[in-house]
Parts: sequence; structure tokens; C-alpha cells
Amino acid sequence: MDFFFKPRGIVLVGATPKPKGGLAILWNLKKGFDGAIHLVNPNYREVDGIACHATVAEVPDPVDMAIVFVKNTLVPEIVEKCAERGIRGVIIESAGFAETGPEGRALQERLKKIAADTGIRLWGPNCMGLVDAKRKYVFSFVSPVIWEEGLIDGDVSLVVQSGMLAGGFLMDIMTHGTMGVAKVCSIGNKVDVNECDLLEYLIKDPDTGAVGLYLESIPQGRRFLDLCRSSKKPIVVLKGGKSARGAAAALSHTASMAGDGAVVTGVLAQAGVVEAQDFKQMMDICRSLAMFPRLSPDLQGRTAVLTYSGGAGILSADFLDSLGLSVADLSPETVERLAGVYPDWMPPANPVDLWPAVEKNGQLKVYGTALSAVMDDPNVDAVLVHLFVGGQAMALEMQDLLRSAKKAGKPIFVWLIGARKPARDAQVCLQDMGIPVFRELFRAVECMQAVFRRARLASRAVLPAGNGERAFDTIRTGEVLSGKSGALDEHESKKILAAAGIPTVHEEKVTDLPQALAVAEKMGYPLVAKGLAAGIVHKTEADLIRLNLTDERELSRAYEELVQKVGPRGSVLLQKQLPAGLEIIAGALSDPQFGPCVMVGLGGIYAEVLNDRRFAAAPVSEEAALAMIGDLKNQKLLAGFRNAPPVDRRALAQVIARLSELVWTNGSIGQVDLNPLMLVNGSPVCVDASVVLAENG
Amino acid sequence: MDFFFKPRGIVLVGATPKPKGGLAILWNLKKGFDGAIHLVNPNYREVDGIACHATVAEVPDPVDMAIVFVKNTLVPEIVEKCAERGIRGVIIESAGFAETGPEGRALQERLKKIAADTGIRLWGPNCMGLVDAKRKYVFSFVSPVIWEEGLIDGDVSLVVQSGMLAGGFLMDIMTHGTMGVAKVCSIGNKVDVNECDLLEYLIKDPDTGAVGLYLESIPQGRRFLDLCRSSKKPIVVLKGGKSARGAAAALSHTASMAGDGAVVTGVLAQAGVVEAQDFKQMMDICRSLAMFPRLSPDLQGRTAVLTYSGGAGILSADFLDSLGLSVADLSPETVERLAGVYPDWMPPANPVDLWPAVEKNGQLKVYGTALSAVMDDPNVDAVLVHLFVGGQAMALEMQDLLRSAKKAGKPIFVWLIGARKPARDAQVCLQDMGIPVFRELFRAVECMQAVFRRARLASRAVLPAGNGERAFDTIRTGEVLSGKSGALDEHESKKILAAAGIPTVHEEKVTDLPQALAVAEKMGYPLVAKGLAAGIVHKTEADLIRLNLTDERELSRAYEELVQKVGPRGSVLLQKQLPAGLEIIAGALSDPQFGPCVMVGLGGIYAEVLNDRRFAAAPVSEEAALAMIGDLKNQKLLAGFRNAPPVDRRALAQVIARLSELVWTNGSIGQVDLNPLMLVNGSPVCVDASVVLAENG
Repeated sequence: MDFFFKPRGIVLVGATPKPKGGLAILWNLKKGFDGAIHLVNPNYREVDGIACHATVAEVPDPVDMAIVFVKNTLVPEIVEKCAERGIRGVIIESAGFAETGPEGRALQERLKKIAADTGIRLWGPNCMGLVDAKRKYVFSFVSPVIWEEGLIDGDVSLVVQSGMLAGGFLMDIMTHGTMGVAKVCSIGNKVDVNECDLLEYLIKDPDTGAVGLYLESIPQGRRFLDLCRSSKKPIVVLKGGKSARGAAAALSHTASMAGDGAVVTGVLAQAGVVEAQDFKQMMDICRSLAMFPRLSPDLQGRTAVLTYSGGAGILSADFLDSLGLSVADLSPETVERLAGVYPDWMPPANPVDLWPAVEKNGQLKVYGTALSAVMDDPNVDAVLVHLFVGGQAMALEMQDLLRSAKKAGKPIFVWLIGARKPARDAQVCLQDMGIPVFRELFRAVECMQAVFRRARLASRAVLPAGNGERAFDTIRTGEVLSGKSGALDEHESKKILAAAGIPTVHEEKVTDLPQALAVAEKMGYPLVAKGLAAGIVHKTEADLIRLNLTDERELSRAYEELVQKVGPRGSVLLQKQLPAGLEIIAGALSDPQFGPCVMVGLGGIYAEVLNDRRFAAAPVSEEAALAMIGDLKNQKLLAGFRNAPPVDRRALAQVIARLSELVWTNGSIGQVDLNPLMLVNGSPVCVDASVVLAENG
Repeated sequence: MDFFFKPRGIVLVGATPKPKGGLAILWNLKKGFDGAIHLVNPNYREVDGIACHATVAEVPDPVDMAIVFVKNTLVPEIVEKCAERGIRGVIIESAGFAETGPEGRALQERLKKIAADTGIRLWGPNCMGLVDAKRKYVFSFVSPVIWEEGLIDGDVSLVVQSGMLAGGFLMDIMTHGTMGVAKVCSIGNKVDVNECDLLEYLIKDPDTGAVGLYLESIPQGRRFLDLCRSSKKPIVVLKGGKSARGAAAALSHTASMAGDGAVVTGVLAQAGVVEAQDFKQMMDICRSLAMFPRLSPDLQGRTAVLTYSGGAGILSADFLDSLGLSVADLSPETVERLAGVYPDWMPPANPVDLWPAVEKNGQLKVYGTALSAVMDDPNVDAVLVHLFVGGQAMALEMQDLLRSAKKAGKPIFVWLIGARKPARDAQVCLQDMGIPVFRELFRAVECMQAVFRRARLASRAVLPAGNGERAFDTIRTGEVLSGKSGALDEHESKKILAAAGIPTVHEEKVTDLPQALAVAEKMGYPLVAKGLAAGIVHKTEADLIRLNLTDERELSRAYEELVQKVGPRGSVLLQKQLPAGLEIIAGALSDPQFGPCVMVGLGGIYAEVLNDRRFAAAPVSEEAALAMIGDLKNQKLLAGFRNAPPVDRRALAQVIARLSELVWTNGSIGQVDLNPLMLVNGSPVCVDASVVLAENG
């Protein structure tokens, strides 16, 4: 893809001396592009002092890439000519394709076919193209006035699906003047080049330190996940359409299947991706992650807060607490060093309120002492520094202090308020040192959280995806599956799970009452009896479950009732009654974007109220499954709530890993529900299950 | 307090020609204050062209107010002189008082005594004073350079407890240049003038449309609540120290009792106050509320989103959904009007993606049509408009469109991105029209939520605080209470609740087995037996509860066991066993800031996991109690979960209202726990309770 990013020569098709996009693109090229610039427009001999050719065929070497900005109907032929001329890539910035009516869709289909037939790579259409801040390459029709003002070279690259948004957002970033970018790619309708192609390139791009993507759909879900997992660089995704109404809007906007929000959240985390919520916040998270890309996953986020304002210190503590980080307990050494600059009446504590000390000993001495003390403190993982810049620029000595502190290796975050110009200058200066600066306190703490979260997620994302050795007998599950289709009954479903090595409750299918009584004798009371009938999945609703049968009399009555309900072709299932307690649910589904996925969550009465579930793409290792369990919100329930034994996490993880292996290796399985898994001494046993096979399974 | 805000003359004590705070105050006065300016400093004859007096006594009329900025030890004597001279108020901006060591505390105590003795009002010390943007009064030592740059007259007034924070934050707001303020009050150590005094003034201040307060503690809690309840103007509070660690920091910072975060949240909502989370966000919420102060409480927040970017529309839908607002279902008329400007291939929907229509019919026609259509639509409560301002200023015609739309009366919010200067200009222009503008999309939706929330809260806050007529027999509860103290046992506790009109389970205390069996015969099985012993509150932990006793044999065994445990001075309580189901908890406590408060929440297994409780200050009316119940997060459980009958909200509200009346009228009650209230056909019955009386009760 270097022909897009580092072409030796570019041909601009649609160059014009009129004040339109074609002229803006030309000006942008002349201003920043250091390769050959060729123009094509049959109506002119030259534009803005550069010779203009009538056709692409006439354009001399070197020419690796074309930028096309002409009427939509003319585009397919021009692209064909580009392919004939040996041009390797085209950025089509014209609109009027699949985002419009049937004619536009037909035009886009033609482009797709040309790409497939000739191998030429097509970027767009309906996009704002590409900006490379380091090289000053602006392959886009954004006005040159805009990017002159504030395009700052940084190491965050962005990929933005929505066309207008990319333009507006880019302009916002550029003119804000405090956020550096590396490359910004507006990918438009994605007729050929898509987010995966670009992500693959950016992961290898030496100028890119972190990648942020705004996406409405992830159609090549598996490829996307594998790229994210393989990336050493932090990746941040802002996924539009996670609510029901947002998903509906996504469908009408780019005909994107937004997918189930909870599945997206689970698999992105599994792949080491940090999710963002809003545009500028994504940018803020990206630049923070780019500055601290490789923290140890074991860090807890114990934070020292250095402040000039007790009030801001208090709110910082509130925010750290609410986002799962913590206010560090300073070591005795740190307290002692702080006491050396504090007034006598004030005991040092964290948040470290420096103002009284500053009044006594001056800003430099106090900030210097405090910064070096917390940097040396083994109880401190990160430092949040509050700065105030008044009418004058930040003192050079203060900059030096922060530069040295940054070298100590712990992440430093700065919350800065003050006068407009000096504050902006201070922000740019500190960010050049690799210290992220925020103008809102909560945003600073949010980004701290993202940095520690990314470290944890990244350490998981590199885990082997599967179990290594076969955890169960594939042949046997294959045998059990063969010849079946549709929704299987509970008993059949559990046979498959058992073959996959998942613990299931002891049960037997019986067909008459004497057999039922004999089986019961062997199993021992109390028992559960369930009616099985073809096509009935929801047994509770159909009143086909009898719990807690304690003797022959109760069993007999239950049996007769169930037989009545299921009819002559049904049967009755007898199971050991397991003691009540915390219930777990697990399951698998085939996601339209990510393929086979597994789920684990809290079941029983908690399932509907807490809605506490975690998804991941299959296959998952036991380690990955442990991480899923650890990500459930209500850890208190798993830890042995109300004198219950704690959940055997390893055993539960094994169930999830095996379930994932089952669906991963058997494409015919469409959906699996283990609802519930009861806990026997903390260890999960499946007492009800449903497996749905694809109709051709 | 007009002598602080509109003094006819001011004396500045501590005027100096040296480049220090005293000079900055003088410059600020000369630049904006239109009354008489007098100076006091015995070391100079004149400063900056104004005569300087040796003492306050010499200062001629008019002089209503003094600003003091001298060494801390000199302050008490100067304040005494001010009182003698007939000056009514002093803003003490010097530091070195209670925020420092014992000497400072002693100085502050002297100030307190002078205020009490002479009636002079003291503002500060250790504060940044007062800024009035409309009058250009800057009674503060902030540098004049700062406020020249961007002090914009607006209608949001701020009260900020923390001194440094007020200064920094004020500077930030001022130099940002897009946020107007009315008055900013930095109240520092609050030796005399406190947040309640200022709130009282600002509620009546014609230049103030909304008030934002950053507070670490609310020591005059009841007065504060009453002021908020009486205010027609929106009030926003950012409360520092709501987390445990934040509260600890608040304690060391200003020796403030931050109070229980959940209690603070409940009582503030009860008083109609919207809570903010961060500084700038508080400002954003304040200016939004000031623009839409009197919406109908019945509006649901059904929002039309007008956007130029499908992507931003999708995210808007996600945000509306996550914040409890909704994407409006457009009426057929609106869809038809939109279709008139849309291209044929695109069906209008909400979010309303205008870009394809703009390409066809131009921005003005399309935005004009869309704005008037949604303004006329009865299904639309509010409009979120996405705007993009490129290199040029926003067109005048576009401003006119928005101005007319605003007149239609529905709240309009604008999310704006674009080039720095034109975007800033557009923001100022739109805000002048009363349309709030945001640079981050989530913040825009957050502020929309705050506007609708405020309308709902305000409608509740004006409800009568008590029940009007006595809901129960005060004399009887008084009789039951008389002569008791400390923690009462369950039976005694329930007698009090019953006297207050709260339904309690039928129960009898028995002292020997034959009596127990006789009582049981009368009550009917199944029964509960509980052991009562002095000093044992946690009966479960002491194994003093026997549930589900179904016959004489079980009762006899339980009785013997319990008697064994409680000893000869204990007794046994028999109760009807109520059917298991959803459990509710309620209670009352004496909050250090707000006095008697009540609580309602989910009990039983849910209590610990969901932590879903709502507090309010007593007394609460039944209507207010209904609102508390409606504010619980897990409404699904109350609505009749899993075939249970729905909670009888009116009956539960009655319990809370009566409980609140009980603690409000009986000061001797320190704490009450109703845990749980079981539901009998949805109606709450208290089955266990504990009342703790103050030791002198």
C-alpha cells in the first residue's frame, strides 16, 4: 500500500483552475507533496502553472497513484484507464455512489469489478482521502487554509469510516492546535480498500504509535481481530451503533450491520482493543496510549495526585475511585521527604496538596521534591499532576522538572488550567516531552484508566487462541452430531456437551413409569422430572418441569402429568436434583461479524436483573476464559456470596474453553445455551441445555 | 449583601505600587468599578494617582465595603477599624488563616468573634473575592491581563469553595472566551459569609439565571435545601468528596465532613438540584439550564437529531439511548416534509441525515425545512443540531434559521465542529441567541439530559414537604418511646413502627413453651420463631432465627434451642411466616449535614449486590416518597418480576412518609432499619426492624 502513502508520482484527474475541490487538491499537493505532480483534464492545457494532459495514458513516469475528483459517471472509465497505464492505486474522492440511489450503487459495482479484474486498488469513493502530517501530504480537498493553521505532527493515526465526519473531525483536530496526528485516512464507501487493509499498513508504519478507528461495522471481523491481536501498537475503536436505535441508524446510513453491542465489546477487549465513546475522547485516549504503550499488565493504577488545589485533589480521588484506579498509599519515605518541604502544621497525604508548601518554599523546590519522591515510591504506579499556568508562559525550570520526572519511567498525566495562550503553549510543550495534558480533570483520569486497561488487555491478547492440545474427542462429538438438524432436545443437547467434556448432570430418559421408578431408586431422591417433546424448547413456559420430587408418590404423580402433556411421542427425563445456589449461564452463537462466539454470565434470578455477561470470539483458551470470568461485573457473587463456596473459576473456564472448541470445530452448530450451570461445591454442572444446529448440519 | 455586590464606595486596604496583588486589585477596580475608590496604606501618600490614607478611619464617604489584602496578622485590627468606620462588609483576600497552623486558626477565630460582636459581614479569608462580569467589577487580585481577554457577560453565577480552584477555574473560563458568567464568588474559609448566604443573594439577583456551586461540605444542610427548593432558578452542585478516599481528602483539606455520597445525591435531587461531575461540565450544565429554565416536567426528551454526518447521527442515537432520552419517532407530516427536500432514493428517518438533501437542494433550504418540520412535530421534545463551520464564518442566513427555530420554544442544542476561529465565533453568536453550543457530542447530550432532569426535579421540589395532616398518632409513638434508650429489640421497635401507622407482621412474644404452642395454634402455621436478648441486634449472625416451622414438633424444638441461646432473661417472638418474594428495605438515619433522612431500597439477596437505595431528607410526603421509589434503578423488579404481583407503590410510599414523620417529630430517634419489608400481594409488611434511640432519648 506504499503507493498510496509514499507515491513517487501522483496524477490528479479533475484538476481545474476554478475554485472547486480539484483546485484545493492541487494546492495541497503543491504545498506539501515532494514527488511528481501530474494533471489530467481535457479542457485545459495547464492549471496553476502545471501542464495538463488530456488522458491518463499520456501522463509520464513516475506515477504510482491517482487522485480522482470528477463527476461520478466518469469515474469507472478513468479508473480503467489508470489500470491500463499501470497505476497501482486510486483515491476516489468523488461522491454519488452507493451512498445514493440505484444508479450510484451500479456505478460502485462497476468499480468493484474493475478492481477485481485488474488488481488496481481503489480507495473510496465518497471520501476525504488521506493526510500525512509528518510528510505534509494532504491528498484531500480540505481547504489549504485549514491545515496551515494547526496541522501538528504526532504519532496517532486515524481511520474514519464516515466521510463528512472524517473531514469535520480532521479540521477540528487540525485547527485546535494541540493534538498531533500521524496519518488520517477517510475511507468512505470502502469499495475495495477497507479498515483492515489500512490497519494492517498502520501497524507496520514507523510513524504511527497508536491507531484510532471510528467504525460503524466490522464486516471482516475475524481479520480485524487477528490484526489487533498481532499489534504491538495500541488500537482504539469508537464503535457507532451499539444501542438499538443507533444500530438502526447505522443500517440506514451505510447499510452496516452494527452487530450486538455486547459481543463487540467482548471481542474487542479480547483482542486488546480499548473502546472509546466519543470523537475527541478517542483522540485523547489514542495520544495517551501512544505515550505509554508498554506498561506492565500487573500495575494496579495506584496514583499519586500532586495538586495546588485541595478541591481538585478531592475530585481526583473521587474520579480515581469511580474508574477503578486507586489513590496510592504513599510510602513512609515519601511522606518524610514531603514533610521536609511542608509547613509543620500540615501532615503530607495523598492527594498531595502542595500549595501550603509552595507558599513556604516556592514552586520549584516543592514540585521538584514531590515529583522525585513519588517517582521513587514503590507504592506509586502513576502520577497525576495538576498545573496552573497564569498570564505568563510556564517556567523553563518547571519544564525541566517534568522532563526529568518523565525519564523515571512512570506514566505522568497533567491536568492543566489557565490563560488561553500560555496554557496552549504549555500543553504543546509538555506533549512534546511525552506527557499527555488534559483540560478537563475527568478526561485525564479516564485516559489514565485507558492506559492501565490497555496494558492488561494487551497481555491477554497475545495468549494462544486455542487450547493447544485437543481438549476433547472431536470424532465423538462429530458422531453425536451426525444426521441431526434444527433444535435438539435437552437430552440430545447434553450428550453433545458431555462428548465435548463439559460436566452435565446425571440423567436418564425413561419411557414408562416402572422404568422411571427403577431409575429413581438407583439415582436416589430428590429428583427432577422433565417432559421432552419435539419442538418445545422453553420447558418452563410449557410447564414441563417438576422440581424437588422427594419420593415415589411425588415422582409417580409428576410422571403421569408430564406424559399427559408431552403425548405418546414425547418422553420424560429424570435428573438428580442439585442444591439451589448461584446459577451461571454460558452459551455460544454465530455472530454475523465475528463468527462463532462464546458467552459466560450470571444466571438464575440474577440473569435478567443484572444482565452481567461477557462475550469472546471462539476459540478461547482457559486463560482467556478466566479473563472473561474476571471481567464480569458482580465479582462479589462469584467470590462466595452468603457463605456459598466460591466459584471454581478454573473449572468454569474449562467449560467455556471446551464449549468454544466445540463450536469452533463444528461449523454446523448455530447456537448453544447452557442455562443454567449449577454449582456443586463451586464447580459448574450443566443441568439444562439447548443446541441448535444449522438446518443443513 | 448589596454592599458586597453593589457598593457605592470601596476602600482597598493594602494598596501598593509594587507589582503585587494589592496593585492588581487596584488596577481591576480602576478598570471596571464605577463607584468611589479609596486606598489605605500608611507607607504611601498616593498609589497610581489616587490618594492613600494612613487608616480606614480617615477614608471619606461613600464607603460600603473594604477589600483587605495585607499580612494575615494585621487583618483582625483592620477589620475592627472597618466596623468602627461603619463599613458593612469586608472581603479578606489574605491567606494564612484556618487553612494553615494553630496561629492561623486563632487569627480566624478572632475574625469570627469580631463579626459576631459588631455585625460586620466578613467574606473569606483566603479567597479570590468576587467578579461581576456584567458590571465589570473585579474585586480580586487576578491579573487584569487575564480578564481583559475573554470576560463575557452571561447569566451563570458560580460559588466556589476552594480558593485556588476558583482562581484557576475563573481564569480558564475567562480566557476560553465562549462561556459567559454573571458573578463568580470565591468564598475561601467561610469565616462568616457562606454558600447559603451567597445562594440566597444569587437566587434573587436579576442578572443570575442559574447558579453552580462547587462544595466540599454543606454544613448548613437544611438551610441549603430550603433555599434550593424555593429557587425558581436552576441550581447545579458539584460535590467533592463523594468517594471514601475523596471524603478523607476533603476532611484534611477544609476539615469538611463530606457526608455520605448517596445521602447527598438523594437530598440534592429532592431539592431540585442537578449534580455535576467535573468543573467545566458544571459550567456547561449551568449554561444549558439557564437557557431552558422552565420546561414542562412531562417532557420525555424525545429528540430529533439533524446531522450532516450519518456517523455522528448514529453516535447521537447511542448517547440518547444510554442517557435515558430517546430518538423521537417523527410524525408522518414531518417525514413528508423532509421527503420534499430529500433525494428520491433516501427515506427520511431520525437521526435526520441531511447531507444528501443538502447536496440536492442546498444547505439553507434543507436545514430550514428540517428545522421547521421538527419544531412543528408533536412527537419531538428537543432538537440536537450538528453544525460544521469550515474556513469561513457561519452564514447569516443560517443564523437567522436557528434564531427563528429557537423562537418556536423547543430546546435546541448544537454540536459544532470546525476551524478554530470561525467555530468560536459561531459558538458565541449562537449562545447569544440562547442556543447552547458544545464541542463534544457526548457533552451536548449530557446537558440535554440535565435540562429534562431539572424540569422533573423542579416539579417535585415544590411539593409540600410534610403530609399536611398528621398521618399517625404522635402521642402514641411518644408514649411507646418514653423512658427508653439505646438499641431497642425487634418487638419494641415494631411497636413504635406500628404506632406510627406502618404495617408490621402479626407477632407475639412468648415466655414458655405451652404459651408458644397456644399462640401458634391461634396464629396458624407456618411460623417464624426468633430469640430476643438484650444487646443482640444481628439475630441471623447469632443464629436466633428459625424459619418455616410447620408444626408443633418443629416449633417445640426451635423453642427449646432458642431459649438455650437467649438465656433466662431473653424471650421468644412468634410471627406468621410470610411467603418468600421480593424484599424491600427502608430506614432512617440522622445525617450530620441534613439531619433526619429516610431511605428506601431493594432488600434481601439484592441489597448487597445491587446496592440500589434512595435517600431523602425527612419529612417526605407520599408524593415525594413515590418519586424516591421511582428513582430506584431496578424498576423491573418492582414492576412484578417473574409473575410476582407488582409492588403497591402507594402503600410503600405511605410507609416511607410515615417513617419520615416519625423521625422528624421524634428527635430522640437516631436510626431505624426496616429490613426487610416483605410484600403481601404487593403490599409491604415489616417483618424485622430495629430502632436505635439517642442515649438521652
